[in-house]
Amino acid sequence: MNFSSKLLEDAVAEFAKLPGVGQKTALRLVLHLLNQDKSDVEKFSASISKLRNEIQFCEVCLNISDHTICQICASPKRDHSVICVVEDTRDVMAIENTNQYNGVYHVLGGLISPMDGIGPSDLQVDSLVERLKNDEVKEIIFALSATMEGDTTIFYLHKRLKSFDITISTIARGIAFGGELEYVDEITLGRSITTRVPYTNSLSK
Amino acid sequence: MNFSSKLLEDAVAEFAKLPGVGQKTALRLVLHLLNQDKSDVEKFSASISKLRNEIQFCEVCLNISDHTICQICASPKRDHSVICVVEDTRDVMAIENTNQYNGVYHVLGGLISPMDGIGPSDLQVDSLVERLKNDEVKEIIFALSATMEGDTTIFYLHKRLKSFDITISTIARGIAFGGELEYVDEITLGRSITTRVPYTNSLSK
Repeated sequence: MNFSSKLLEDAVAEFAKLPGVGQKTALRLVLHLLNQDKSDVEKFSASISKLRNEIQFCEVCLNISDHTICQICASPKRDHSVICVVEDTRDVMAIENTNQYNGVYHVLGGLISPMDGIGPSDLQVDSLVERLKNDEVKEIIFALSATMEGDTTIFYLHKRLKSFDITISTIARGIAFGGELEYVDEITLGRSITTRVPYTNSLSK
Repeated sequence: MNFSSKLLEDAVAEFAKLPGVGQKTALRLVLHLLNQDKSDVEKFSASISKLRNEIQFCEVCLNISDHTICQICASPKRDHSVICVVEDTRDVMAIENTNQYNGVYHVLGGLISPMDGIGPSDLQVDSLVERLKNDEVKEIIFALSATMEGDTTIFYLHKRLKSFDITISTIARGIAFGGELEYVDEITLGRSITTRVPYTNSLSK
Protein backbone atom coordinates (compact mmCIF):
# COMPACT_ATOMS: atom_id res chain seq x y z
CA MET A 1 0.00 0.00 0.00
CA ASN A 2 1.13 3.56 -0.70
CA PHE A 3 0.82 5.41 2.59
CA SER A 4 0.70 9.18 2.53
CA SER A 5 2.28 9.33 5.99
CA LYS A 6 5.02 7.44 7.81
CA LEU A 7 3.16 7.75 11.13
CA LEU A 8 0.11 6.18 9.53
CA GLU A 9 2.20 3.42 7.99
CA ASP A 10 3.83 2.63 11.36
CA ALA A 11 0.52 2.46 13.19
CA VAL A 12 -1.01 0.25 10.47
CA ALA A 13 2.04 -2.05 10.59
CA GLU A 14 1.66 -2.42 14.37
CA PHE A 15 -2.04 -3.22 14.11
CA ALA A 16 -1.42 -5.68 11.27
CA LYS A 17 0.77 -7.72 13.62
CA LEU A 18 -2.31 -8.65 15.66
CA PRO A 19 -3.73 -12.09 14.91
CA GLY A 20 -6.46 -12.08 12.26
CA VAL A 21 -5.84 -8.43 11.37
CA GLY A 22 -4.64 -7.76 7.83
CA GLN A 23 -3.42 -4.52 6.26
CA LYS A 24 -6.90 -3.37 5.22
CA THR A 25 -8.49 -4.03 8.59
CA ALA A 26 -5.52 -2.41 10.32
CA LEU A 27 -5.95 0.70 8.19
CA ARG A 28 -9.67 0.81 8.97
CA LEU A 29 -8.97 0.57 12.72
CA VAL A 30 -6.22 3.21 12.61
CA LEU A 31 -8.38 5.65 10.63
CA HIS A 32 -11.16 5.07 13.16
CA LEU A 33 -8.77 5.98 15.98
CA LEU A 34 -7.67 9.10 14.06
CA ASN A 35 -11.29 10.28 14.09
CA GLN A 36 -11.59 9.90 17.87
CA ASP A 37 -10.80 12.51 20.49
CA LYS A 38 -7.17 12.71 21.54
CA SER A 39 -8.11 11.79 25.12
CA ASP A 40 -9.92 8.63 23.96
CA VAL A 41 -6.94 7.53 21.89
CA GLU A 42 -4.65 8.26 24.82
CA LYS A 43 -6.87 6.10 27.04
CA PHE A 44 -6.74 3.29 24.48
CA SER A 45 -2.98 3.48 24.20
CA ALA A 46 -2.48 3.75 27.97
CA SER A 47 -4.76 0.82 28.79
CA ILE A 48 -2.62 -1.50 26.66
CA SER A 49 0.70 -0.29 27.97
CA LYS A 50 -0.58 -0.39 31.57
CA LEU A 51 -1.96 -3.89 31.14
CA ARG A 52 1.33 -5.25 29.85
CA ASN A 53 3.41 -3.54 32.53
CA GLU A 54 1.23 -4.09 35.59
CA ILE A 55 -0.48 -7.40 34.99
CA GLN A 56 0.28 -10.22 37.42
CA PHE A 57 -0.27 -13.93 37.39
CA CYS A 58 -1.87 -15.63 40.41
CA GLU A 59 0.83 -17.44 42.38
CA VAL A 60 -1.44 -20.44 42.92
CA CYS A 61 -3.35 -21.05 39.68
CA LEU A 62 -1.31 -18.80 37.33
CA ASN A 63 -4.42 -17.13 35.98
CA ILE A 64 -4.21 -13.45 34.97
CA SER A 65 -4.87 -11.32 38.03
CA ASP A 66 -4.45 -7.86 39.52
CA HIS A 67 -3.11 -9.32 42.76
CA THR A 68 -0.59 -11.98 43.76
CA ILE A 69 -3.47 -14.35 44.55
CA CYS A 70 -6.49 -14.26 42.23
CA GLN A 71 -10.07 -13.82 43.41
CA ILE A 72 -10.97 -17.46 42.76
CA CYS A 73 -7.99 -18.89 44.65
CA ALA A 74 -8.54 -16.42 47.51
CA SER A 75 -12.25 -17.20 47.87
CA PRO A 76 -13.19 -19.41 50.86
CA LYS A 77 -16.49 -20.22 49.09
CA ARG A 78 -14.71 -22.22 46.36
CA ASP A 79 -13.98 -25.93 46.71
CA HIS A 80 -10.19 -26.08 46.86
CA SER A 81 -10.19 -29.89 46.67
CA VAL A 82 -11.08 -29.86 42.95
CA ILE A 83 -8.67 -28.39 40.39
CA CYS A 84 -9.75 -27.81 36.81
CA VAL A 85 -6.75 -27.80 34.46
CA VAL A 86 -7.21 -25.40 31.52
CA GLU A 87 -5.10 -24.00 28.70
CA ASP A 88 -5.50 -20.26 29.31
CA THR A 89 -7.49 -17.42 30.84
CA ARG A 90 -10.17 -17.60 28.17
CA ASP A 91 -11.05 -21.12 29.27
CA VAL A 92 -11.34 -20.01 32.89
CA MET A 93 -13.73 -17.27 31.77
CA ALA A 94 -15.74 -19.69 29.62
CA ILE A 95 -16.14 -22.16 32.51
CA GLU A 96 -16.94 -19.38 35.00
CA ASN A 97 -19.68 -18.19 32.68
CA THR A 98 -21.43 -21.59 32.91
CA ASN A 99 -21.94 -21.14 36.70
CA GLN A 100 -21.60 -24.92 36.94
CA TYR A 101 -18.18 -25.19 38.55
CA ASN A 102 -17.24 -24.25 42.10
CA GLY A 103 -13.68 -25.60 42.31
CA VAL A 104 -10.41 -23.84 41.55
CA TYR A 105 -8.28 -23.73 38.40
CA HIS A 106 -4.80 -24.33 37.14
CA VAL A 107 -3.77 -22.46 33.99
CA LEU A 108 -1.19 -24.38 31.93
CA GLY A 109 -0.42 -21.48 29.63
CA GLY A 110 -0.57 -23.65 26.51
CA LEU A 111 -0.80 -27.21 25.22
CA ILE A 112 1.96 -29.62 24.29
CA SER A 113 2.53 -29.16 20.57
CA PRO A 114 5.75 -30.55 19.08
CA MET A 115 4.88 -28.90 15.74
CA ASP A 116 5.06 -25.48 17.38
CA GLY A 117 8.03 -26.44 19.55
CA ILE A 118 6.02 -26.36 22.78
CA GLY A 119 7.04 -29.12 25.18
CA PRO A 120 5.98 -29.97 28.76
CA SER A 121 8.70 -27.72 30.15
CA ASP A 122 7.04 -24.69 28.53
CA LEU A 123 3.84 -25.33 30.47
CA GLN A 124 3.00 -24.89 34.15
CA VAL A 125 3.22 -28.60 34.94
CA ASP A 126 5.68 -28.53 37.84
CA SER A 127 3.59 -25.98 39.70
CA LEU A 128 0.56 -28.27 39.26
CA VAL A 129 2.51 -31.22 40.69
CA GLU A 130 3.54 -29.02 43.62
CA ARG A 131 -0.10 -28.16 44.28
CA LEU A 132 -1.05 -31.85 44.34
CA LYS A 133 1.48 -32.56 47.07
CA ASN A 134 -0.96 -30.64 49.25
CA ASP A 135 -3.25 -33.32 50.74
CA GLU A 136 -6.33 -31.20 50.21
CA VAL A 137 -6.71 -31.95 46.47
CA LYS A 138 -9.09 -34.83 45.72
CA GLU A 139 -9.86 -34.44 42.02
CA ILE A 140 -8.27 -33.10 38.86
CA ILE A 141 -10.51 -32.27 35.90
CA PHE A 142 -8.88 -31.82 32.51
CA ALA A 143 -10.85 -29.21 30.56
CA LEU A 144 -8.63 -29.04 27.48
CA SER A 145 -9.51 -28.70 23.80
CA ALA A 146 -10.55 -31.93 22.06
CA THR A 147 -7.64 -31.65 19.64
CA MET A 148 -4.44 -33.60 19.05
CA GLU A 149 -2.57 -31.10 21.27
CA GLY A 150 -5.18 -31.32 24.03
CA ASP A 151 -5.13 -35.11 23.99
CA THR A 152 -1.32 -35.22 24.01
CA THR A 153 -1.27 -32.88 27.00
CA ILE A 154 -3.84 -34.96 28.89
CA PHE A 155 -1.85 -38.14 28.11
CA TYR A 156 1.36 -36.57 29.43
CA LEU A 157 -0.24 -35.06 32.53
CA HIS A 158 -2.02 -38.32 33.34
CA LYS A 159 1.33 -40.12 33.34
CA ARG A 160 2.86 -37.47 35.61
CA LEU A 161 -0.10 -37.40 38.01
CA LYS A 162 -1.28 -41.02 38.25
CA SER A 163 1.01 -41.73 41.24
CA PHE A 164 -1.06 -39.33 43.35
CA ASP A 165 -4.13 -40.67 45.15
CA ILE A 166 -6.62 -38.44 43.34
CA THR A 167 -9.50 -38.84 40.91
CA ILE A 168 -8.52 -37.77 37.38
CA SER A 169 -11.33 -36.94 34.99
CA THR A 170 -11.87 -35.11 31.70
CA ILE A 171 -14.89 -33.06 30.64
CA ALA A 172 -17.47 -35.07 28.65
CA ARG A 173 -17.23 -35.21 24.87
CA GLY A 174 -20.14 -35.90 22.57
CA ILE A 175 -22.78 -34.12 20.54
CA ALA A 176 -23.58 -30.59 21.67
CA PHE A 177 -26.88 -29.77 23.35
CA GLY A 178 -29.32 -28.58 20.74
CA GLY A 179 -27.16 -30.14 18.01
CA GLU A 180 -28.95 -31.91 15.18
CA LEU A 181 -27.59 -35.39 14.50
CA GLU A 182 -27.27 -34.99 10.73
CA TYR A 183 -24.88 -32.05 11.10
CA VAL A 184 -22.57 -33.68 13.66
CA ASP A 185 -19.20 -34.74 12.22
CA GLU A 186 -18.47 -38.47 11.91
CA ILE A 187 -15.71 -38.64 14.54
CA THR A 188 -17.78 -36.95 17.25
CA LEU A 189 -20.86 -39.03 16.41
CA GLY A 190 -18.86 -42.28 16.25
CA ARG A 191 -17.13 -41.57 19.55
CA SER A 192 -20.39 -40.53 21.20
CA ILE A 193 -21.89 -43.92 20.27
CA THR A 194 -18.96 -45.93 21.63
CA THR A 195 -18.84 -43.81 24.79
CA ARG A 196 -22.62 -43.89 25.34
CA VAL A 197 -23.90 -43.45 28.90
CA PRO A 198 -26.85 -45.11 30.73
CA TYR A 199 -30.04 -43.18 30.00
CA THR A 200 -31.10 -42.14 33.52
CA ASN A 201 -27.62 -41.00 34.37
CA SER A 202 -27.22 -38.71 31.37
CA LEU A 203 -30.51 -36.84 31.74
CA SER A 204 -30.99 -36.65 35.49
CA LYS A 205 -27.75 -34.77 35.96
CA MET B 1 -17.84 -11.74 30.76
CA ASN B 2 -16.25 -12.45 34.13
CA PHE B 3 -12.77 -10.94 33.97
CA SER B 4 -10.18 -12.06 36.47
CA SER B 5 -8.46 -8.68 36.28
CA LYS B 6 -9.59 -5.06 36.09
CA LEU B 7 -6.61 -4.17 33.88
CA LEU B 8 -7.60 -6.93 31.47
CA GLU B 9 -11.22 -5.79 31.52
CA ASP B 10 -10.21 -2.18 30.76
CA ALA B 11 -7.98 -3.16 27.85
CA VAL B 12 -10.67 -5.44 26.41
CA ALA B 13 -13.26 -2.67 26.75
CA GLU B 14 -10.98 -0.26 24.86
CA PHE B 15 -10.37 -2.75 22.05
CA ALA B 16 -14.07 -3.59 21.85
CA LYS B 17 -14.77 0.06 20.97
CA LEU B 18 -13.00 -0.42 17.62
CA PRO B 19 -15.34 -0.98 14.66
CA GLY B 20 -16.04 -4.64 13.95
CA VAL B 21 -14.30 -5.81 17.13
CA GLY B 22 -16.53 -7.56 19.67
CA GLN B 23 -15.74 -8.68 23.21
CA LYS B 24 -14.37 -12.07 22.16
CA THR B 25 -12.11 -10.68 19.44
CA ALA B 26 -10.97 -7.92 21.79
CA LEU B 27 -10.03 -10.51 24.41
CA ARG B 28 -8.11 -12.54 21.84
CA LEU B 29 -6.16 -9.47 20.72
CA VAL B 30 -5.40 -8.36 24.28
CA LEU B 31 -4.21 -11.84 25.31
CA HIS B 32 -2.01 -11.87 22.21
CA LEU B 33 -0.45 -8.57 23.28
CA LEU B 34 0.07 -9.96 26.81
CA ASN B 35 2.17 -12.73 25.30
CA GLN B 36 4.42 -10.27 23.46
CA ASP B 37 7.60 -8.67 24.75
CA LYS B 38 7.11 -5.53 26.81
CA SER B 39 9.08 -3.50 24.26
CA ASP B 40 6.84 -4.66 21.39
CA VAL B 41 3.70 -3.73 23.29
CA GLU B 42 5.24 -0.38 24.18
CA LYS B 43 5.96 0.18 20.47
CA PHE B 44 2.37 -0.69 19.59
CA SER B 45 0.97 1.63 22.21
CA ALA B 46 3.36 4.46 21.31
CA SER B 47 2.70 4.25 17.56
CA ILE B 48 -1.00 4.90 18.15
CA SER B 49 -0.53 7.72 20.59
CA LYS B 50 2.14 9.32 18.37
CA LEU B 51 -0.03 9.03 15.26
CA ARG B 52 -2.97 10.76 16.93
CA ASN B 53 -0.84 13.55 18.39
CA GLU B 54 1.50 14.28 15.50
CA ILE B 55 -0.52 13.59 12.38
CA GLN B 56 -1.16 16.51 10.06
CA PHE B 57 -3.53 17.12 7.20
CA CYS B 58 -2.20 18.52 3.92
CA GLU B 59 -3.15 22.20 3.68
CA VAL B 60 -4.04 21.82 0.00
CA CYS B 61 -5.84 18.49 -0.43
CA LEU B 62 -6.53 17.69 3.26
CA ASN B 63 -5.13 14.19 2.91
CA ILE B 64 -3.34 12.66 5.92
CA SER B 65 0.30 13.70 5.82
CA ASP B 66 3.45 14.04 7.88
CA HIS B 67 4.05 17.56 6.55
CA THR B 68 1.98 20.69 5.98
CA ILE B 69 1.88 19.90 2.23
CA CYS B 70 1.54 16.22 1.24
CA GLN B 71 3.89 14.46 -1.19
CA ILE B 72 1.30 14.40 -3.97
CA CYS B 73 0.47 18.10 -3.76
CA ALA B 74 4.18 18.99 -3.48
CA SER B 75 5.19 16.91 -6.50
CA PRO B 76 5.93 18.88 -9.72
CA LYS B 77 5.41 15.66 -11.69
CA ARG B 78 1.69 15.57 -10.92
CA ASP B 79 -0.89 17.31 -13.10
CA HIS B 80 -2.25 20.07 -10.86
CA SER B 81 -4.97 20.99 -13.36
CA VAL B 82 -6.99 17.85 -12.54
CA ILE B 83 -8.49 17.36 -9.06
CA CYS B 84 -9.98 14.04 -8.04
CA VAL B 85 -12.54 14.50 -5.24
CA VAL B 86 -12.63 11.53 -2.83
CA GLU B 87 -14.22 10.69 0.49
CA ASP B 88 -11.15 9.80 2.56
CA THR B 89 -7.52 8.72 2.66
CA ARG B 90 -8.37 5.10 1.83
CA ASP B 91 -9.78 6.21 -1.51
CA VAL B 92 -6.60 8.15 -2.29
CA MET B 93 -4.58 5.01 -1.55
CA ALA B 94 -6.90 2.85 -3.67
CA ILE B 95 -6.60 5.21 -6.66
CA GLU B 96 -2.82 5.60 -6.20
CA ASN B 97 -2.51 1.81 -6.29
CA THR B 98 -4.06 1.71 -9.77
CA ASN B 99 -1.16 3.79 -11.21
CA GLN B 100 -3.72 5.23 -13.65
CA TYR B 101 -4.07 8.73 -12.26
CA ASN B 102 -1.54 11.52 -12.33
CA GLY B 103 -3.57 14.45 -11.06
CA VAL B 104 -4.01 15.70 -7.51
CA TYR B 105 -6.72 14.99 -4.92
CA HIS B 106 -9.17 16.69 -2.64
CA VAL B 107 -10.28 14.75 0.44
CA LEU B 108 -13.81 15.67 1.53
CA GLY B 109 -13.59 13.85 4.84
CA GLY B 110 -16.98 12.20 4.43
CA LEU B 111 -20.15 12.17 2.35
CA ILE B 112 -23.39 14.10 2.79
CA SER B 113 -25.63 11.84 4.85
CA PRO B 114 -28.70 13.42 6.48
CA MET B 115 -29.39 10.13 8.29
CA ASP B 116 -26.06 10.43 10.12
CA GLY B 117 -26.41 14.19 10.56
CA ILE B 118 -23.58 14.97 8.12
CA GLY B 119 -24.29 18.04 6.01
CA PRO B 120 -22.20 19.96 3.45
CA SER B 121 -20.73 22.15 6.20
CA ASP B 122 -19.12 19.09 7.81
CA LEU B 123 -17.20 18.38 4.60
CA GLN B 124 -14.24 20.18 3.02
CA VAL B 125 -16.34 21.88 0.35
CA ASP B 126 -15.34 25.50 0.89
CA SER B 127 -11.66 24.63 0.60
CA LEU B 128 -12.42 22.88 -2.71
CA VAL B 129 -14.22 25.99 -4.02
CA GLU B 130 -11.21 28.09 -2.94
CA ARG B 131 -8.91 25.81 -4.95
CA LEU B 132 -11.06 26.21 -8.05
CA LYS B 133 -10.67 29.97 -7.93
CA ASN B 134 -7.12 29.25 -9.01
CA ASP B 135 -7.19 29.42 -12.85
CA GLU B 136 -4.97 26.38 -13.13
CA VAL B 137 -7.73 23.81 -12.50
CA LYS B 138 -9.33 22.45 -15.68
CA GLU B 139 -11.13 19.32 -14.52
CA ILE B 140 -12.82 17.90 -11.44
CA ILE B 141 -13.34 14.14 -11.19
CA PHE B 142 -15.77 12.83 -8.61
CA ALA B 143 -14.53 9.45 -7.38
CA LEU B 144 -17.17 8.83 -4.72
CA SER B 145 -18.97 5.65 -3.69
CA ALA B 146 -21.91 4.66 -5.90
CA THR B 147 -24.31 4.94 -2.97
CA MET B 148 -27.15 7.25 -2.05
CA GLU B 149 -24.71 9.35 0.03
CA GLY B 150 -22.16 9.50 -2.81
CA ASP B 151 -24.80 10.53 -5.33
CA THR B 152 -26.21 13.18 -2.99
CA THR B 153 -22.73 14.60 -2.47
CA ILE B 154 -22.02 14.69 -6.22
CA PHE B 155 -25.41 16.40 -6.81
CA TYR B 156 -24.64 19.05 -4.20
CA LEU B 157 -21.05 19.65 -5.35
CA HIS B 158 -22.13 19.88 -8.98
CA LYS B 159 -24.58 22.65 -8.06
CA ARG B 160 -21.85 24.50 -6.15
CA LEU B 161 -19.22 24.10 -8.87
CA LYS B 162 -21.11 24.46 -12.14
CA SER B 163 -20.52 28.22 -12.29
CA PHE B 164 -16.78 27.58 -12.75
CA ASP B 165 -15.44 27.06 -16.27
CA ILE B 166 -14.18 23.52 -15.68
CA THR B 167 -14.99 20.00 -16.88
CA ILE B 168 -16.86 18.01 -14.23
CA SER B 169 -16.82 14.23 -14.56
CA THR B 170 -17.46 11.15 -12.45
CA ILE B 171 -15.68 7.81 -12.59
CA ALA B 172 -17.40 5.27 -14.86
CA ARG B 173 -19.99 2.92 -13.41
CA GLY B 174 -20.92 -0.45 -14.86
CA ILE B 175 -20.06 -4.10 -14.58
CA ALA B 176 -16.64 -4.86 -13.10
CA PHE B 177 -13.82 -6.19 -15.28
CA GLY B 178 -13.82 -9.98 -15.06
CA GLY B 179 -17.40 -9.93 -13.76
CA GLU B 180 -19.76 -12.58 -15.06
CA LEU B 181 -23.05 -11.14 -16.28
CA GLU B 182 -25.29 -13.59 -14.44
CA TYR B 183 -23.90 -12.51 -11.05
CA VAL B 184 -24.21 -8.76 -11.62
CA ASP B 185 -27.06 -7.13 -9.66
CA GLU B 186 -30.05 -5.81 -11.60
CA ILE B 187 -29.49 -2.12 -10.94
CA THR B 188 -25.87 -2.14 -12.13
CA LEU B 189 -26.72 -4.24 -15.17
CA GLY B 190 -29.75 -2.09 -16.03
CA ARG B 191 -27.77 1.14 -15.67
CA SER B 192 -24.84 -0.28 -17.64
CA ILE B 193 -27.23 -0.98 -20.56
CA THR B 194 -28.78 2.49 -20.55
CA THR B 195 -25.36 4.14 -20.22
CA ARG B 196 -23.73 1.94 -22.89
CA VAL B 197 -20.69 3.36 -24.71
CA PRO B 198 -19.56 3.07 -28.36
CA TYR B 199 -17.60 -0.15 -28.84
CA THR B 200 -14.26 1.17 -30.13
CA ASN B 201 -14.15 3.85 -27.46
CA SER B 202 -14.64 1.46 -24.57
CA LEU B 203 -11.92 -1.01 -25.53
CA SER B 204 -9.26 1.21 -27.01
CA LYS B 205 -8.89 3.22 -23.81
